Amino acid sequence: MKRIKLTVAYDGTHYCGWQRQPGQPTVEGKLNQVLSEFLMEEIEITGASRTDSGVHALGNVAIFDTDTKIPPEKLAYGLNQRLPEDIQIMESCQVADDFHPRYSARKKIYQYRILNSRFPIPTERLYSYHVYNTLDHKEMHKAGQVLVGSHNFKGFCSGKTEVLDMTRTIYRIDVMRMGDIILIEVEGNGFLYNMVRIIAGTLIRAGMGKMDIEQIKDALERKDRTLAGPTAPAQGLSLIKIFYM
Amino acid sequence: MKRIKLTVAYDGTHYCGWQRQPGQPTVEGKLNQVLSEFLMEEIEITGASRTDSGVHALGNVAIFDTDTKIPPEKLAYGLNQRLPEDIQIMESCQVADDFHPRYSARKKIYQYRILNSRFPIPTERLYSYHVYNTLDHKEMHKAGQVLVGSHNFKGFCSGKTEVLDMTRTIYRIDVMRMGDIILIEVEGNGFLYNMVRIIAGTLIRAGMGKMDIEQIKDALERKDRTLAGPTAPAQGLSLIKIFYM
Repeated sequence: MKRIKLTVAYDGTHYCGWQRQPGQPTVEGKLNQVLSEFLMEEIEITGASRTDSGVHALGNVAIFDTDTKIPPEKLAYGLNQRLPEDIQIMESCQVADDFHPRYSARKKIYQYRILNSRFPIPTERLYSYHVYNTLDHKEMHKAGQVLVGSHNFKGFCSGKTEVLDMTRTIYRIDVMRMGDIILIEVEGNGFLYNMVRIIAGTLIRAGMGKMDIEQIKDALERKDRTLAGPTAPAQGLSLIKIFYM
Repeated sequence: MKRIKLTVAYDGTHYCGWQRQPGQPTVEGKLNQVLSEFLMEEIEITGASRTDSGVHALGNVAIFDTDTKIPPEKLAYGLNQRLPEDIQIMESCQVADDFHPRYSARKKIYQYRILNSRFPIPTERLYSYHVYNTLDHKEMHKAGQVLVGSHNFKGFCSGKTEVLDMTRTIYRIDVMRMGDIILIEVEGNGFLYNMVRIIAGTLIRAGMGKMDIEQIKDALERKDRTLAGPTAPAQGLSLIKIFYM
């Protein structure tokens, strides 16, 4: 028996998120099905991030245990032949038997993509959020720095969470503009439910001049979700990479 | 009666190209339908570029004549409400009565997007061509310079053309790499059928080390389609902009 780690990329457009739900297309459900058929064993993966419906990933991570004789590195090739085009394995390798995709994770990078133009561009619609008010990306970057560090992020978390300890550390927030595209990159040791999308929604308000640094500090310190910005839509968000120790 | 110019962006994935064909979804067909319904006149647009099935555009151009009282600049807003998300008008304005989107065009910019990575990335699949052999983008750029200038491009044109004069001028070919993405930008006074896709296919062969500058010169000088590279797939191609005098 050996433990295999998969680095999984997907286009979340047509999935009801990562987590398996009966009767719904999910990334986890599809991976379990294809792995079980391919390896002719009953496989149930454990994922690192249960991304929401419509959220994309370049590097989510999942593990499973198997008796297969196929070399771990070769699994990606065989799986990609069988997976749909909107889910692909970027890498497969063997890991230690006690490796856990969630508990062993050290750091995650998310990216939020905004199209800031007068009209929505068709080829951007599935992978970005269209904002037509001109955004000041330098103000957004400045506003983001308020959130860097270790904080209780209750004010930046959906009420629908079951987590008790809401302290997380954000190592870096960068806001960059390339033409009409604005990218928000957030790097942290972990994220609460909807946290990156609420951060994006808050920085967008800051970029419109509708929220200032004091108000963001206030939302953070008072741990009040109603003081932070709205939850930005799912299709702008991608889980880029998860780092392990 | 006034003549209106539309700058049209679209995601070509679900269309059988620009040009109207009975019983098929086309960009031209959709625009005629939505314009006619919106303006309550029978509208038939004339387009600048009849892009192929699956090719995208940021700035194709179409004109039509109308009696509408709606200010020309406002038409884009009304149309975008009625158009599907995969076709949007970036700009609408009035032009001179003798303005013709094809004959008045001075210069066009096309972009060909390549994903050069071991495995295809799901969120790139609709808008790029996946090549897994490592490409040397500097060699591709060098190879592209052979094509810059005024030449008879018969060797870089599909046999399915009816055009007689095959001389075109390419002002610029740039090949850039950003991580796993390679962009080929081609700027010219006009392009033959499949010309940009054949140029892309040829530069990809050069980037793989399977074709050298002498062979590309040969394909050009001998006007022999069989000597150039293959036609790269449609989904990597976007018509970026058309310039008028």
